[in-house]
Amino acid sequence: MNNAIRIIGIDPGLRRTGWAIIETLGNSLRFVAAGTVRSDGDAALATRLCQIHDGLEGILHEYVPVEAAVEATFVNKDAAATLKLGQARGIAMLVPARAGLLVAEYAPNAVKKSVIGVGHGDKKQIHMMVKVLLPRARFDTDDAADAIAIAICHAHHRQSAVSRLALEAAK
Amino acid sequence: MNNAIRIIGIDPGLRRTGWAIIETLGNSLRFVAAGTVRSDGDAALATRLCQIHDGLEGILHEYVPVEAAVEATFVNKDAAATLKLGQARGIAMLVPARAGLLVAEYAPNAVKKSVIGVGHGDKKQIHMMVKVLLPRARFDTDDAADAIAIAICHAHHRQSAVSRLALEAAK
Repeated sequence: MNNAIRIIGIDPGLRRTGWAIIETLGNSLRFVAAGTVRSDGDAALATRLCQIHDGLEGILHEYVPVEAAVEATFVNKDAAATLKLGQARGIAMLVPARAGLLVAEYAPNAVKKSVIGVGHGDKKQIHMMVKVLLPRARFDTDDAADAIAIAICHAHHRQSAVSRLALEAAK
Repeated sequence: MNNAIRIIGIDPGLRRTGWAIIETLGNSLRFVAAGTVRSDGDAALATRLCQIHDGLEGILHEYVPVEAAVEATFVNKDAAATLKLGQARGIAMLVPARAGLLVAEYAPNAVKKSVIGVGHGDKKQIHMMVKVLLPRARFDTDDAADAIAIAICHAHHRQSAVSRLALEAAK
């Protein structure tokens, strides 16, 4: 019997959207796959959004996760960059929601806290801890590594939610 | 024979997305329909994005436009508002692109210039000129009126593009 919950973590971006599939069963985590959906920088915006859509849809079909976690990224650069990110993020949330998955959002500091124990830290620390928590993890880009961290964050948060319910039921 | 080109104009927003269907044939414009897709402010973001998606998809099925125009809005409020708009805008561009429509983007000042003759002006002026250009136009919200203006802007621009090609061919 396998009651493992399969999770997709998504780190959205217009150029590169990282994704990761992990499984959680009790306290154990298992790495399944990770990668990067790219959009063609020379193509029209609408075409690029379709590329992100089709890429993520293909991954959902291939790995059939049941829950999704997306980073609630916050860009402080400029309005144009934030608008671009928002457009990609809209697709990253739409695709799993339309497929019937639960879609959770996590702030970057919540993701960092889940993986490296504190709410701040650089990419190197995240990569290192991803490798500690999931020794079999393989990722092709920083975005894919971030997506693994987001999936781990969701695995931790959903477990604590389940534990809380069990505790309340035992009262 | 009817060679009219049916256009959908979209004014995206997370809460309210305005849409308008018009037809252009030579120099004449015809109003078909306009309205507003609303998302439930109490629902989760992913659910709201699905509502926008499904609303726009329903309109494409009902009216079968062949070209789409979306406003390239620029919010100068705050990063959170820009991110929200970006998410809605991503969906507004994805839906027609996936349906195989050409998707054009127009800056707000281009839309105003098309409708009121200059690149600046308030909502009242836009509403008035929409009524002058399309006396049969009916709209339930400002967003629907803006969507009509965006569709008119595309009708004007695509005509000038066609004229330019005809001129070049005649050389």
